[in-house]
Amino acid sequence: MLMLDRDIIQGRGFRNLVDGDRITGFQFQLRNPNYRGTSASLLDGIDVTIDGEKIPDHLPVWTLQGRTFSLDELRASTDARWQLDETATITVPKPGGLSVGVHDIDVVVYLRRPYFPPMVSRSAFPAQAKRVIVPPVPGGGLRYAVSTYSHSGDLYTSMTLEDVLADTADIGATGIEILGEANVPGYPTPSPAWVDSWHELLATYGLTATNFGAWVDTAMWRDRDLTEEEAAAQLQLDLRLASRLGFTSIRPKFGVTSFELDPHPVWSGAVQRSLDLAAELDVLICPEIHSPTPIKHPVTQGYLEFIERTGTDHFKLLIDTGIFQTAPVDDGHEGVEIEEGKKRPAFLEPLAVPISDLVEILPQVYFIQTKFFEIDDQLGDLHVPWAPIMAALEEANWNGWLSSEYEGRREPYRGRDQVRRQHALLRSLQTRP
Amino acid sequence: MLMLDRDIIQGRGFRNLVDGDRITGFQFQLRNPNYRGTSASLLDGIDVTIDGEKIPDHLPVWTLQGRTFSLDELRASTDARWQLDETATITVPKPGGLSVGVHDIDVVVYLRRPYFPPMVSRSAFPAQAKRVIVPPVPGGGLRYAVSTYSHSGDLYTSMTLEDVLADTADIGATGIEILGEANVPGYPTPSPAWVDSWHELLATYGLTATNFGAWVDTAMWRDRDLTEEEAAAQLQLDLRLASRLGFTSIRPKFGVTSFELDPHPVWSGAVQRSLDLAAELDVLICPEIHSPTPIKHPVTQGYLEFIERTGTDHFKLLIDTGIFQTAPVDDGHEGVEIEEGKKRPAFLEPLAVPISDLVEILPQVYFIQTKFFEIDDQLGDLHVPWAPIMAALEEANWNGWLSSEYEGRREPYRGRDQVRRQHALLRSLQTRP
Repeated sequence: MLMLDRDIIQGRGFRNLVDGDRITGFQFQLRNPNYRGTSASLLDGIDVTIDGEKIPDHLPVWTLQGRTFSLDELRASTDARWQLDETATITVPKPGGLSVGVHDIDVVVYLRRPYFPPMVSRSAFPAQAKRVIVPPVPGGGLRYAVSTYSHSGDLYTSMTLEDVLADTADIGATGIEILGEANVPGYPTPSPAWVDSWHELLATYGLTATNFGAWVDTAMWRDRDLTEEEAAAQLQLDLRLASRLGFTSIRPKFGVTSFELDPHPVWSGAVQRSLDLAAELDVLICPEIHSPTPIKHPVTQGYLEFIERTGTDHFKLLIDTGIFQTAPVDDGHEGVEIEEGKKRPAFLEPLAVPISDLVEILPQVYFIQTKFFEIDDQLGDLHVPWAPIMAALEEANWNGWLSSEYEGRREPYRGRDQVRRQHALLRSLQTRP
Repeated sequence: MLMLDRDIIQGRGFRNLVDGDRITGFQFQLRNPNYRGTSASLLDGIDVTIDGEKIPDHLPVWTLQGRTFSLDELRASTDARWQLDETATITVPKPGGLSVGVHDIDVVVYLRRPYFPPMVSRSAFPAQAKRVIVPPVPGGGLRYAVSTYSHSGDLYTSMTLEDVLADTADIGATGIEILGEANVPGYPTPSPAWVDSWHELLATYGLTATNFGAWVDTAMWRDRDLTEEEAAAQLQLDLRLASRLGFTSIRPKFGVTSFELDPHPVWSGAVQRSLDLAAELDVLICPEIHSPTPIKHPVTQGYLEFIERTGTDHFKLLIDTGIFQTAPVDDGHEGVEIEEGKKRPAFLEPLAVPISDLVEILPQVYFIQTKFFEIDDQLGDLHVPWAPIMAALEEANWNGWLSSEYEGRREPYRGRDQVRRQHALLRSLQTRP
């Protein structure tokens, strides 16, 4: 099931229109601004202004329920409708289309309402929005995905899981990352019907299941820690569930014992006990390198030594790009208390790991969560230096998933918009397929 | 499918707890404030303050997935979970419970997050909300319903149709009014599967389908008006669809020809042609008496004469209580332009119809849409005089539906909250079953 954006101008569906190798215009989607669905014959035009440029009235065409109409055709129509739970697509011819990035869309939708006094029955519904044109994926070994984490707060309140997949497919991304304990209803034992529906959604939206976020809550009980056996059982439960849902890696977040996020010592034994299952299922186990743990640190080195020692090819690193952050984020962090006089807890100071450290370990990196907080209207990221990161990945010819993980302010719908901005930015920085 | 409120403290589910004829406490529901679902053993208590009164820590108990736990039981639990897409119910013992009306709920939910450094892993998630205790329906011939119109803007963006029914049932209302062209997917030809699902929803939530809002758009085309035959065909289409969905009345909103909302003259012929079908289906046709048309007005008198002349008992009046409005509403009216220097268009001036006019025609009134705009924290309505309206209905021993039609500001979730306030207010004014 899909929901609509509260805004009249929808985030999904804003795109350039491609005809062969030419861009011929752009389109966007609207929800019905009235409180009732309406016969299309009651539609009475739309003013479209894009980045301050007014589009001549006769140019926009409407697509309703799969059929496309000029304004005159709408007015004369007898059986077309704009339902309240459906979008209308507005297509605007414009050779060359719109540039990649953020655009100001300004519309006035006109509807005639016969139950209003005739002099005021032509009603004007204005709407404005900033919306993002995302370029196609350049191709090559860098593959683009989105994590459901980007949609925290929106998911289950204004977005369904299907909305997340639809948004992801809408920007041409091909991978979807989920959090098992967040997004699998009935975790750890989803119904077979739900598992079927998940695979159907993947097929519908042409998406590949990428990474499955999992947790090993070593401090699950207050009076004792998980044993190595218990930790291994949790890991194996998630490996099996991830495999059943089509994922190719899991990220187990072990409980930590320090401010530098040292994982609980059961981690290595629990992973070692699970390597055979991981190989059997062909699902990689990927610990997350996450701020405040840098790359040149005993924790990361411990993971690398584990790979070396075991010779496994089913244990690799997952990099959270928050470690490259060069500017602090002070938007608040839910549930974390801040010392008086401090702007942020020490473990949220920007870590600014050198990109050269990443380059050294890239052969052991399986997956990259492109953590970010805010990308501005000029596609400038305020915190994470994407140009050198992307250049390093291309230089090293690294292949794998870049999975958007928005962690900025949880204002309604902000994650959806910011994810589009990040894909526009990263793809623009990619210089070659 | 149900969505959750964005607020951590949900609107639905706030109620007094009744044990036999005693009220023993109150309860409310929370969505999970974290970004992942969690083992219940990681929950670490809740602070509850109600109207400034702090509840002792040991009193609140938790219900998760149908099982109830004290804090110690939560901490020791091994298989209970709080999923991200599920609510937790907090029950607070309090003899006598809470008074009818608006209450300040203030909570801090504590979760342990083992993947955070130990010193900060106990996370505090604060949330505040004003929420409404609605008393049971007093019984008798006044029956309480809700119109989907109350949820305009929320419906399809943050609420599903099922959410509307769930909200309605949650306050003990027993009727649901819909707008055909707004809420029937695929109108006018919904799929049989949708029709089945509609009847299942009614059964699940114990609701009666009441009135079906319909339109006869006489100005559907710009170059000519609907003929009487076409208007009758529209009316009959809606009668059949309403009947199929279990409704007992339809409100056809005919196009109007004046600022006083004179209906298009085809109305009487179109209705006359449809009376046999209405009788056959036993669905009443109810024209809406809506501001700026008062009761003592040729339009309303025309309807009464029609009843007299035809002798039908399948054509009666629907009253929109906006006609009793004594104070203006200047929250803006979507799509309506306002003359310079005026605060509102003339047809939105308060009409203040005398309640005695209502009393005179009550025998011809089948349905009342309890239109309103704002009810404050003391359950005071700022615009509509409910005390004399309710007294008149009781005095006349009128029987029928009072169907909430919120038409105030379309801020997210406001309709849901205001509907609860209205039911609390109207039921409090009812003096007898």
